[in-house]
Amino acid sequence: MTATVHRLRKAAPSLDPMLALVAGDMNAVNAVILDRMQSQIPLIPELAGHLIAGGGKRMRPMLTLASARLIGYTGTRHHRLAAAVEFIHTATLLHDDVVDGSDLRRGRRTANIIWGNPASVLVGDFLFSRSFELMVEDGSLKVLKILSNASAVIAEGEVNQLTAARRVDLGEDRYLDIIGAKTAALFAAACRIAAVVAERPEAEETALDAYGRNLGIAFQLVDDAIDYVSDAGTMGKDAGDDFREGKMTLPVILAHARGTPEERQFWKDAVEGRRDSDADFAHAVELVQRSRAVDDTLARARHYGQRAIDAIAGFPDGAAKAAMVEAVEFAVARAY
Amino acid sequence: MTATVHRLRKAAPSLDPMLALVAGDMNAVNAVILDRMQSQIPLIPELAGHLIAGGGKRMRPMLTLASARLIGYTGTRHHRLAAAVEFIHTATLLHDDVVDGSDLRRGRRTANIIWGNPASVLVGDFLFSRSFELMVEDGSLKVLKILSNASAVIAEGEVNQLTAARRVDLGEDRYLDIIGAKTAALFAAACRIAAVVAERPEAEETALDAYGRNLGIAFQLVDDAIDYVSDAGTMGKDAGDDFREGKMTLPVILAHARGTPEERQFWKDAVEGRRDSDADFAHAVELVQRSRAVDDTLARARHYGQRAIDAIAGFPDGAAKAAMVEAVEFAVARAY
Repeated sequence: MTATVHRLRKAAPSLDPMLALVAGDMNAVNAVILDRMQSQIPLIPELAGHLIAGGGKRMRPMLTLASARLIGYTGTRHHRLAAAVEFIHTATLLHDDVVDGSDLRRGRRTANIIWGNPASVLVGDFLFSRSFELMVEDGSLKVLKILSNASAVIAEGEVNQLTAARRVDLGEDRYLDIIGAKTAALFAAACRIAAVVAERPEAEETALDAYGRNLGIAFQLVDDAIDYVSDAGTMGKDAGDDFREGKMTLPVILAHARGTPEERQFWKDAVEGRRDSDADFAHAVELVQRSRAVDDTLARARHYGQRAIDAIAGFPDGAAKAAMVEAVEFAVARAY
Repeated sequence: MTATVHRLRKAAPSLDPMLALVAGDMNAVNAVILDRMQSQIPLIPELAGHLIAGGGKRMRPMLTLASARLIGYTGTRHHRLAAAVEFIHTATLLHDDVVDGSDLRRGRRTANIIWGNPASVLVGDFLFSRSFELMVEDGSLKVLKILSNASAVIAEGEVNQLTAARRVDLGEDRYLDIIGAKTAALFAAACRIAAVVAERPEAEETALDAYGRNLGIAFQLVDDAIDYVSDAGTMGKDAGDDFREGKMTLPVILAHARGTPEERQFWKDAVEGRRDSDADFAHAVELVQRSRAVDDTLARARHYGQRAIDAIAGFPDGAAKAAMVEAVEFAVARAY
């Protein structure tokens, strides 16, 4: 029997199979999340709840749950750990919004706008500590190692991004380093820990890690491309947000590299904060289209998406694998 | 043979015996700290090094080392864990300075002033993650539990303090809750983990925890009193800093509670930010002296100091115990 070769297809893919696959487990994860974000200090659940209940897709815990399904894990340890992963992610978002001075996330006002930066920093710290408490309760040093390392890598990636801010000559490699750290590391860890709790061989850990990591990179690349696609909305973010913040993303890197001297000056001005009008954004969209910078960003995303799919090729076919493949297809198709 | 009863004495105590006791171990801890604050992202060691090399007393790792001496631990596991404790503390300071908008710490410009709030938030996150990596390398789930819990309690305490800010009717109990969480919890954990790595009985863990916790409370109370003592300087902080920030501390709570209606209004205006001139501070000093609020804050500190000393009464006499007793005496004598 020949293994099924999964390839990216053209039909409109959906996240629904994955949502259906993990629905029961996700209820359990949500119960842990709600229980463990409580505190005798009312501001903590109030602020944390705003973000946690705020329409996020729970992408990372979903990956832990789907990975556990893929390898046939039938226990419940991953519920607590998936909640820990979501807490790390939520803490990161709270701190990110402070760092970026963001005022909107998924179409809602950010916590730092409502409660102020100090509260966002401190509740982020609380959730981060709480995530480690959850891991300690589970008791796997291997999981603790994976997630503490991922957390350090995320923070390093954020600092790397901060020092790279407004540098138009960033380069694709450093950009990939940044998103590999700040986005893909937690996707990878979220998948990998499923193999750890299921006590599967190292090769399965590595395969799930690779699935998550490549999916995370693809996800971030598409996210960055969407900013230059006018009818965005799937992400709850508005087109042009990244541009107006002077954020260095792959579409900018490619359009700058491929541009005329005048166009390069335009991009330099833009990332240094001197171009943020609607007309400037319209010009930016024209440049990224003309230079095929968005198309090629999406082509890069498909490359990582295909790698994610191939990483799990060795696992048995079934509903879990099909859902995980389609989740990748969905991630890379969002911008079309 | 009757056990020696250690009591607070009047002679000028010093931290020198404790510094001497742990000097060799502290070199090992400093080596871990310097090694593990490195990163391929240059801003991380640069910013972390500013604070870590910035004249701190390494009070918390010193307590881990002294506690290990007290119980006769001869291994080296506590070096890594003491570094983890210092990283948690450093991360907390970085975030605190962002939260408070501080511009000076120990007489030097704060990291948030030099490198900005975003970098301070993110490098704090990095150090916090790194501290967990160090604990995972040690491999004790019990230590991980103690320190992840302490971290969550610290963050809760910080949020509690934030929501209590500028409330003149805070009350002594809630104030004690706050400093118990934000200061004393890490002192307690720093001491306790020494008993864990040495595999000592639960009662010794509890005794060391109580030593650290009570010392931490005493330490913070004296810190708060010093703000209203004009010839301060031992802390590298200037008299009046807390007052000008409208910070609620025990001297304010007591002076407000004991004041006339006019004086209460003065304190309300002060903590709500409407009284921050030199003349206002001079008046505040007069009020806290007249109401004996500083004296009684220091009396409270001596109470907790005595409890710290009594908590370790059951351990064998010797250089370690004498140094730990004198460290408490030093902590409560700083304001005289």
